[in-house]
Amino acid sequence: MTVKHIVLIKLKAGADGERLMKQIEALKDAIPQVQSVQLGVGFSPARDKGFTHGLAMTFKNREDLQIYNVAEAHVNLVKNDLVPVADDLLVFDYDIVEF
Amino acid sequence: MTVKHIVLIKLKAGADGERLMKQIEALKDAIPQVQSVQLGVGFSPARDKGFTHGLAMTFKNREDLQIYNVAEAHVNLVKNDLVPVADDLLVFDYDIVEF
Repeated sequence: MTVKHIVLIKLKAGADGERLMKQIEALKDAIPQVQSVQLGVGFSPARDKGFTHGLAMTFKNREDLQIYNVAEAHVNLVKNDLVPVADDLLVFDYDIVEF
Repeated sequence: MTVKHIVLIKLKAGADGERLMKQIEALKDAIPQVQSVQLGVGFSPARDKGFTHGLAMTFKNREDLQIYNVAEAHVNLVKNDLVPVADDLLVFDYDIVEF
């Protein structure tokens, strides 16, 4: 079942969000399990709980998401490029249901 | 520019999540500006801040999202079917960037 992987990021003041988004987008080329990635800067602050940047990825199934989660390119990006510039993170994964 | 509309819901204990998801999915038929909707139940509790259900919608642009936001079918669903069963809500909207 197709999996959606949503990540919301609260970027630290002064951090380079465009650089970070380009790095995340490049994971699609580095890790073949990533089917798609769509990123952007939030524009509805009323109910976003302070998150500034968001992304939605799709994977074929939970196994592919797990391969991505432990892939070196992803682990290194999170450690070196994401966590240092993020004040807060939210990750939400779900199997896309069909009714 | 295509817009992503992400909603995360923390459902009250005992509430009928499947019924709610079916109602939200039906908005796609009721409101033509909704290009797609993908819903599901979260399975990665470590970093989801307690949210239990999520959805990602796409719209052609911000104008279509705004039409959706004020559409009667959507407003009624939020008021009558979503807010009464939700302990918390997060909404994150962004223009999908292309690098």
